[in-house]
Amino acid sequence: MDERIAARHETRRRHILNVASRIFAERGYRATSMQALAQESGMGKASLYHYFHSKEEVLAELYEHVIRENIVSARLIASGSLSALEALDRVIVDRVVYTCENRELLNVFFEEEAELPDRLRGRLIVARREYEATLMEAIAAGVASGEISISTSPRVVVNTMLGAANWVYKWYDPKGVLTPAEIGRDVSELLLAGIAGPNWVGGRARRAKAQ
Amino acid sequence: MDERIAARHETRRRHILNVASRIFAERGYRATSMQALAQESGMGKASLYHYFHSKEEVLAELYEHVIRENIVSARLIASGSLSALEALDRVIVDRVVYTCENRELLNVFFEEEAELPDRLRGRLIVARREYEATLMEAIAAGVASGEISISTSPRVVVNTMLGAANWVYKWYDPKGVLTPAEIGRDVSELLLAGIAGPNWVGGRARRAKAQ
Repeated sequence: MDERIAARHETRRRHILNVASRIFAERGYRATSMQALAQESGMGKASLYHYFHSKEEVLAELYEHVIRENIVSARLIASGSLSALEALDRVIVDRVVYTCENRELLNVFFEEEAELPDRLRGRLIVARREYEATLMEAIAAGVASGEISISTSPRVVVNTMLGAANWVYKWYDPKGVLTPAEIGRDVSELLLAGIAGPNWVGGRARRAKAQ
Repeated sequence: MDERIAARHETRRRHILNVASRIFAERGYRATSMQALAQESGMGKASLYHYFHSKEEVLAELYEHVIRENIVSARLIASGSLSALEALDRVIVDRVVYTCENRELLNVFFEEEAELPDRLRGRLIVARREYEATLMEAIAAGVASGEISISTSPRVVVNTMLGAANWVYKWYDPKGVLTPAEIGRDVSELLLAGIAGPNWVGGRARRAKAQ
């Protein structure tokens, strides 16, 4: 394929994935046929098969998208360029923003796990475990440096943070008054107040600075 | 029906609902047939229809169970016998414990909403809105009394709390070291630290007292 054809191929693949996020989220993965996906994507079923060999391949690609996002986020933390609290703040804000902007994709991601083929489910579990381990290490580092104080296990802290950030896919309203970045900052501030020392001012300081 | 027969009927209904929670959570609601539900419940399909007229009726009953739990919780807050922080603490702890103890039911509740018949979905939306409104009122009352300080909207606070508490259905491990009540206290402490004044010591005080 020459470059132009490859770019066009990629554009159409993305279009199909966007449509798939939406209709899997609305109707459920299992209830959606390749026929329906083709129709909603504005193409014939034969054309759709040119891009994806099966519905399972579409689902797998959607999961890969979210997993890649998590890996980028984990690398940032592991790079050590931020303090523990700064890294956790960044993770929460980025995650909330990403979730708001990809609500339908995350709906599929969180609710269709049972539909994944075993191979991909295994990969997902490993990726999630590594991601959570990176966050737990950041917390342990923060505790060691005195930046963070926790009275429960790092696992409970990490799951509380991820839960609050992920849950945004259930309630974010694009017509609401707060932008995704504002929601991210507010959620992060609420969560980090529980583990930060009195010198951490998080979102409040950021907002004061911005005014 | 005399009392004994009624009690037996109720016991079997509950048994079927428990089995349904588990297999809907494992395989998905749509992928589960009444035949499979009958088989897993250890009864014939005809007997199953004696208790539930349709799969939809089973799903509806599972949703009613969770909705009733929320109404009990909302009444407690609205009764005004607790301070705002005490009420929120109680809601978070109760919710985490209920979620740990009914993980499969909550999995169905959170992930099968698209499968609900319109009538029940409408009821669910109203019940959820009332529940969240009660929590927001508790927060507003706490702000008015000076017990609580927030720098975002009550809606973001409520959703952050519910998100963290609900997410437990994804990660609670019955073989883990922490009991549901301990997880509830720890999650509540993390969340309320973000809105409570310095006099609120929450879980730490409770734990110290228990020792």
